[in-house]
Amino acid sequence: MKYAFVKDKFVPAYSASISIQERGFRFGDGVFETIRISSGVAYQWELHCERLISGLLALKIEADISELEKLCTKLIRKNKIKNGILRISISRGIGSNGYFPTAKNSTIIIETSELPAVKKPAVNLWLSSYEKISLGALPVNTKLMQGVSSTLARLEADQNNCHEALLLNRDKHISECSSSNIFWFRDDYLFTPELSCGLVAGTTRSAILRISPFEIKEGKFSLEDILSADEIFLCNVAWQIISVQKILPVGSTNYKETKSRTGLIRKLLTQDIKNYAASKNN
Amino acid sequence: MKYAFVKDKFVPAYSASISIQERGFRFGDGVFETIRISSGVAYQWELHCERLISGLLALKIEADISELEKLCTKLIRKNKIKNGILRISISRGIGSNGYFPTAKNSTIIIETSELPAVKKPAVNLWLSSYEKISLGALPVNTKLMQGVSSTLARLEADQNNCHEALLLNRDKHISECSSSNIFWFRDDYLFTPELSCGLVAGTTRSAILRISPFEIKEGKFSLEDILSADEIFLCNVAWQIISVQKILPVGSTNYKETKSRTGLIRKLLTQDIKNYAASKNN
Repeated sequence: MKYAFVKDKFVPAYSASISIQERGFRFGDGVFETIRISSGVAYQWELHCERLISGLLALKIEADISELEKLCTKLIRKNKIKNGILRISISRGIGSNGYFPTAKNSTIIIETSELPAVKKPAVNLWLSSYEKISLGALPVNTKLMQGVSSTLARLEADQNNCHEALLLNRDKHISECSSSNIFWFRDDYLFTPELSCGLVAGTTRSAILRISPFEIKEGKFSLEDILSADEIFLCNVAWQIISVQKILPVGSTNYKETKSRTGLIRKLLTQDIKNYAASKNN
Repeated sequence: MKYAFVKDKFVPAYSASISIQERGFRFGDGVFETIRISSGVAYQWELHCERLISGLLALKIEADISELEKLCTKLIRKNKIKNGILRISISRGIGSNGYFPTAKNSTIIIETSELPAVKKPAVNLWLSSYEKISLGALPVNTKLMQGVSSTLARLEADQNNCHEALLLNRDKHISECSSSNIFWFRDDYLFTPELSCGLVAGTTRSAILRISPFEIKEGKFSLEDILSADEIFLCNVAWQIISVQKILPVGSTNYKETKSRTGLIRKLLTQDIKNYAASKNN
């Protein structure tokens, strides 16, 4: 049987529940993290923790996370997960039916799940008709329980037979995809939007910035910039790296992954995940 | 004992719960309505239903709401509510831990609560440092379970000893307040932002537009426009109408409610609520 941690105890995952009064349910008033478990170890735990704390601060949610790492490790062991996904949610708790919160005790939930099946061939991207929510409106660099924007973009992509949706911000700069950060190569430079473009500060994105042997250009880029790329790839905790074939309905180029660029990043990332787990397991 | 309706049955409200896998909890993936109950009748039921359906359509959530009115009436009677608040939430349901939803069965929740204590004296408004989420990013004219923007604005207002927060959109046009729509008088015109400014299509706002004996100017307005108002008021289902005293930190004017303008709107609204209940109870 799989377990989940809810509030203060481990419970059978299938029956784990929360009150309908939770502000996480009423208003998506909380933050979450999805973390890759590799050889039983939560990859880049420190980065996830840092982003979780940023989110809690931005939302002015108080939470005692001093036991969080211990609880996560315990759940991974209880559920006998070698490779999978760890999900931490922190909701503001119960207090007030209106927007002004009176909740004092936040609610921590920890779950594990299987790694999703990853698309092996390159995927098509749909240029979303939805604009990315701006950093002036919400602390979108963190992972908020406010997923409607990404859900709508992803549904629209699916309706157009695309795997993922590319979102531009209000200034028409490339921000991110609905469930992933985006990178592309032109010549031997590796490009990716900077955080001010309203993207989630993805931890796989951070890993790539750290391990890349290519010179990185982080900045504000237009659709034209990415359309003239040589190779494009997406990254997140679950997929790691997926190559992009086409950007629809705007592009005509068929991008092709090469071993020496996207392929090399994938190889280095896989190695980094192994190294991280090995260093923690020693 | 008070009851709530969850999914398919009435349960004791204090113990009503949902799965942690509900997308309403994971991502705020759903819509809600708060409806004023007056003399046991849900005021402007038709308008709330219309907005609920708009929200479900915008979010591409399928829900069977054919029994909704009957269930709400039943809950109001079970809980013996004469005057209070009815809250309907529809979450997309359970399906997928990622943004792309596989949920097929949405979850309906109905609750009742007391009317909140309403501030009688005029309140101060805080000009929010948060920008209103744009209509291009989310269908913000409906009531989404995405409340972090309003919660953050309201918390900031409270920290500055103000009751409510005034939000401008990206174009610096007045949109709405964190928990209410806004109106103001200049001369004998009644002004309010138009829906394209990114506001919730408030049902109390609709009632005011319908019953106002003053000529209405709906449009795009700047902060300067409202600062030069004679009287300013806020409206929502729970508060009905609250007068604004000051806009901080930008304004120096002390706005004063008069009987012949804001006072008259309040009187007409109270009468309209009574008339509506009487017509339904006959």
